[in-house]
Amino acid sequence: MKIQKMKHSTIDIRIRLAETDPYGIAHHSNYFTWFEEGRFDYFEKNTYEVSDMKNNSDVVYCNLSIKCKFLKSVGFKDEIQVKTYMSQPSIYARYLFQQEIINKKTGEKVAECNSTMAGLSRKNWEIITLPEDEN
Amino acid sequence: MKIQKMKHSTIDIRIRLAETDPYGIAHHSNYFTWFEEGRFDYFEKNTYEVSDMKNNSDVVYCNLSIKCKFLKSVGFKDEIQVKTYMSQPSIYARYLFQQEIINKKTGEKVAECNSTMAGLSRKNWEIITLPEDEN
Amino acid sequence: MKIQKMKHSTIDIRIRLAETDPYGIAHHSNYFTWFEEGRFDYFEKNTYEVSDMKNNSDVVYCNLSIKCKFLKSVGFKDEIQVKTYMSQPSIYARYLFQQEIINKKTGEKVAECNSTMAGLSRKNWEIITLPEDEN
Amino acid sequence: MKIQKMKHSTIDIRIRLAETDPYGIAHHSNYFTWFEEGRFDYFEKNTYEVSDMKNNSDVVYCNLSIKCKFLKSVGFKDEIQVKTYMSQPSIYARYLFQQEIINKKTGEKVAECNSTMAGLSRKNWEIITLPEDEN
Repeated sequence: MKIQKMKHSTIDIRIRLAETDPYGIAHHSNYFTWFEEGRFDYFEKNTYEVSDMKNNSDVVYCNLSIKCKFLKSVGFKDEIQVKTYMSQPSIYARYLFQQEIINKKTGEKVAECNSTMAGLSRKNWEIITLPEDEN
Repeated sequence: MKIQKMKHSTIDIRIRLAETDPYGIAHHSNYFTWFEEGRFDYFEKNTYEVSDMKNNSDVVYCNLSIKCKFLKSVGFKDEIQVKTYMSQPSIYARYLFQQEIINKKTGEKVAECNSTMAGLSRKNWEIITLPEDEN
Repeated sequence: MKIQKMKHSTIDIRIRLAETDPYGIAHHSNYFTWFEEGRFDYFEKNTYEVSDMKNNSDVVYCNLSIKCKFLKSVGFKDEIQVKTYMSQPSIYARYLFQQEIINKKTGEKVAECNSTMAGLSRKNWEIITLPEDEN
Repeated sequence: MKIQKMKHSTIDIRIRLAETDPYGIAHHSNYFTWFEEGRFDYFEKNTYEVSDMKNNSDVVYCNLSIKCKFLKSVGFKDEIQVKTYMSQPSIYARYLFQQEIINKKTGEKVAECNSTMAGLSRKNWEIITLPEDEN
């Protein structure tokens, strides 16, 4: 995958009431769902293969590790942006992501996240490569 | 299914912090997850077929409708019981459930729920019957 | 509340991976979170009081009952619309909602929901009225 | 806090259907909810103050950072144990946790997690200390 040509992804999310906790702020487990949506959007923006893979149901995306720092809280109805970058080229079908959440109103960074994903073939559960990996 | 012989199900659940909302009480969307666990426990307690079905991956349980009344709130660490009954024999693979949630400490009824499920074959997406339906 | 003048609400939602289950479709517990967001949007669209109430933290919205029919399934990345209407004027601070979920691509109705909410004052936990209730 | 005297915590969890995803395995966002329950159980097992704090509503537990490695998948009805240790004494009200999830049937380690929490006073939003911190 030619990292220099990759487009980063930005998605908008509005915090739901069900995502907030007794302290009136978004529960941290939801951040991981938002970050994941950002990663899928990144795949969609950069490789035509992604939606086909979904349709063919032959690939399983697997999280190997996630590290997240929580910097600011966000509450019900707050609007955030999840920004997703790939921190280095995919090697051996390992995808290293750098992500951050920005509070749209204040511009403050809410959280930052580093994660590693792998793609597995659903047929034989072996690691797959995307066409771009060949280049 | 011979309704008179069916055993009802009772499962215990302890409210998690992530399930509570800014008012300090469990968000209502979680009740539907707890009720579902109660229904699966009911299937397990009453038909040996259930776990096999799961392993063979050839059945899809499908909710057709749910009606729930919310009577009392429950908070973090509260312990509840989900009680599940089948309100009438399965006919045409429709399972009519009556359920309630009890606060274990106070004995008060927290919620009551009526729901209808159907079982579909994953192979042809047609409605299936359990062995007991034949009787 | 002058029901004839009320504007209905429509919000757009895109199904997240974390909202889908082993059958590849959105788990039904999420529908209740989406319907709730629709009801809050309805409040926002129709009464200036709502955001103030939130800021002052002096009102608690409480679900009394919910009834939902599940008509079609939706999957990851599907785009839906949640449409919210008030089925009759607010009386004694009971809000009766009629809602439906539409699959934006197919136009099919995915689910329909009837629910009753009440507004409670956080200060004395008594039922409150909105300004429009006076008319 | 005298780390050498602290009791570690073990809690049991059974995977719910709503926690699994289209690949038939638990979605990773749920791991963070389970780990959190483990940390709260740890607090409860080791300091009488915890439940009082909750009742008085004067403390807010705040996650500063979380790092998690996902080693094995778990599916619907699988039973797991969340084991929680404190990796070093609390200093300046920073609680450093080491946690792991074990599949009860296979004994395999499913995930491991390092996290840092802080306790804030709800009254003045300043960092608090537990009585044991004085020793």
